[in-house]
Amino acid sequence: MSFMSVDSDKLARTSCVRPIKIEDGRVLLLDQRKIPERVEYFDATALSDMFNAIKDMIVRGAPVIGVAAALGLASEGRRLAHAGLAQREFIEKLDLARKKLQSSRPTAVNLRWATDLIFEKACKGNSANLSLLADELFAAAISMVEDDIRANMMIGRHGASVIPDEGGVLTHCNAGALATCGWGTALGVIRSAWDHGKRFNVYVDETRPRQQGARLTTWELLQDNITPTLITDSMAGYLMAQRRIDVVIVGADRIATNGDAANKIGTYTVAVLAHAHNIPFYIAAPLSTIDPHIENGDQIPIEEREASEVTVIGDQKICPPEVHVWNPAFDVTPARLVSGIICQTGILRPPYTESIQAALAQAPD
Amino acid sequence: MSFMSVDSDKLARTSCVRPIKIEDGRVLLLDQRKIPERVEYFDATALSDMFNAIKDMIVRGAPVIGVAAALGLASEGRRLAHAGLAQREFIEKLDLARKKLQSSRPTAVNLRWATDLIFEKACKGNSANLSLLADELFAAAISMVEDDIRANMMIGRHGASVIPDEGGVLTHCNAGALATCGWGTALGVIRSAWDHGKRFNVYVDETRPRQQGARLTTWELLQDNITPTLITDSMAGYLMAQRRIDVVIVGADRIATNGDAANKIGTYTVAVLAHAHNIPFYIAAPLSTIDPHIENGDQIPIEEREASEVTVIGDQKICPPEVHVWNPAFDVTPARLVSGIICQTGILRPPYTESIQAALAQAPD
Repeated sequence: MSFMSVDSDKLARTSCVRPIKIEDGRVLLLDQRKIPERVEYFDATALSDMFNAIKDMIVRGAPVIGVAAALGLASEGRRLAHAGLAQREFIEKLDLARKKLQSSRPTAVNLRWATDLIFEKACKGNSANLSLLADELFAAAISMVEDDIRANMMIGRHGASVIPDEGGVLTHCNAGALATCGWGTALGVIRSAWDHGKRFNVYVDETRPRQQGARLTTWELLQDNITPTLITDSMAGYLMAQRRIDVVIVGADRIATNGDAANKIGTYTVAVLAHAHNIPFYIAAPLSTIDPHIENGDQIPIEEREASEVTVIGDQKICPPEVHVWNPAFDVTPARLVSGIICQTGILRPPYTESIQAALAQAPD
Repeated sequence: MSFMSVDSDKLARTSCVRPIKIEDGRVLLLDQRKIPERVEYFDATALSDMFNAIKDMIVRGAPVIGVAAALGLASEGRRLAHAGLAQREFIEKLDLARKKLQSSRPTAVNLRWATDLIFEKACKGNSANLSLLADELFAAAISMVEDDIRANMMIGRHGASVIPDEGGVLTHCNAGALATCGWGTALGVIRSAWDHGKRFNVYVDETRPRQQGARLTTWELLQDNITPTLITDSMAGYLMAQRRIDVVIVGADRIATNGDAANKIGTYTVAVLAHAHNIPFYIAAPLSTIDPHIENGDQIPIEEREASEVTVIGDQKICPPEVHVWNPAFDVTPARLVSGIICQTGILRPPYTESIQAALAQAPD
């Protein structure tokens, strides 16, 4: 079985939640800051709009910001192609655009991976006709959307086996359709298991400071008629002590070649708790999340974001203004706490240095 | 040294933050729901007002709700004494009032302890003059305020030794002056260490769902010119992994005779994290927090509160309305994760079954 094979019926069904839409050559992003109150799309076709959309988390989630940035870079390529530039100037300006997009968020590696792919295609492509080349780049970026959904469907298929027939599953943050181009990674596994008739309780961490669990994951699951139970991040330990969790599954923003994985802040705490309670802890992510240049988690840059994410919720200030704040957006879970990494080629197991190398060798690019 | 001895200068200085004030025989409670925005007192002299003040968390924190309830019961005694009742009827109605107050919140044992003390005093007192008896009950309740502050000063004195000269201390929820009658338990230890000239970073967990860390602990420390660093609950693990925490210190709502301790939800998670990082984890609490009738944590009733505490922050709804919610207000930390219990007689060490028994035998009542 090719790992790109996929059930086309299921693919069609994923259309209910789509964080990216292409309409008349424009790149529209579901504004995830407004979910669950409103479903609104933001036009991020222009380079500066895409940059801000990623930085301000209108779009978030490692796989989808990779594809969004690729579409943003390709859109910029189209604009440049109509500016009457020489080929060398076109490539120089496209390179600046790539670097700008890559600087929008430092931790997720998919952003670099996807924009590098588009840029390499530009360098290798037919530069005699820049307009045609730009269209090819845009088509390549669009094909990433379907590739990503296909990868997620395969992740779901492989991962469904780790989900119990009944009992409880805990997830942190949002690694769902909203974080990808559709179906999702961690939530894709949950969806696939549900599709296979398994009926279990899905517990969702609120995921402070930005509450992606409370706002996005619950909303997304409800679209599929799965009613989750929301807890605050502080409740995960007690929930496990009550033996209500059988497996934990989360996404990732960057995975080192030894299996250490950066993911949304709080993931490490959940992994330590799972380990202390002998609960399997899985990461679900496409192979593009693995950074072949990084050997361990210490080398992964961790973004620190502004204090107001912690101190203000909606219009509510939750603490006195004089307070100091520490706000890392991600943390690193060491490989020793990870039971398996579910990707489109299967479930990678320790020792990850070997299983990751083998999976990357099997991947198409 | 008597364990009731205390530095009277320090006692006077604790007046800056007082969750209970007695004015003209009325019991006024600092409305902790409004901190840090506003400092307002709520008149809880009437029984139903005190019941609601405890239930709705106008006043919260195990030691102070004990004393507040004792004052509420004594106030009700004064009201009954002027109603022209027979002695037996007076006691019956006072018993009903006691039971009503004890039903306001199930987990903290100090509430039961303090109201039982007042009620026993009523049963044993001179019933020939109910008005005089009621005044005696009120005076006894007032003396609990000073006893509590004295106990906290001793807790602070004993506990200061566990705080490093520099480095980092993490606390969860609010076990400060606001949770007691002044000075605080866990924050009392931090204050005492600061008084001794130690200079360390105080990290404060937000403490979702009700954010007592963000709202109350930060505000209280700023009153003493200690500037804390606020983190979300999800960041504690990563903070420890970065070696920025040398000791964890929290309060307790009920301690079993084996040392298992109920405290604000999320405490157990912090204890597991501290254990995984070889960081000492201390509980600071007066002896009245120990429940001599309970052998282990499984027997401690855990209050579950309404879903809206999780789903609404200020006016902000953070999730779709269809979502299920689990909202336990407390969790239980097993004794094996507790490095020591700091109380007014000293630091109790494992095996707690023995050290707790010895401490209770040493206590005055």
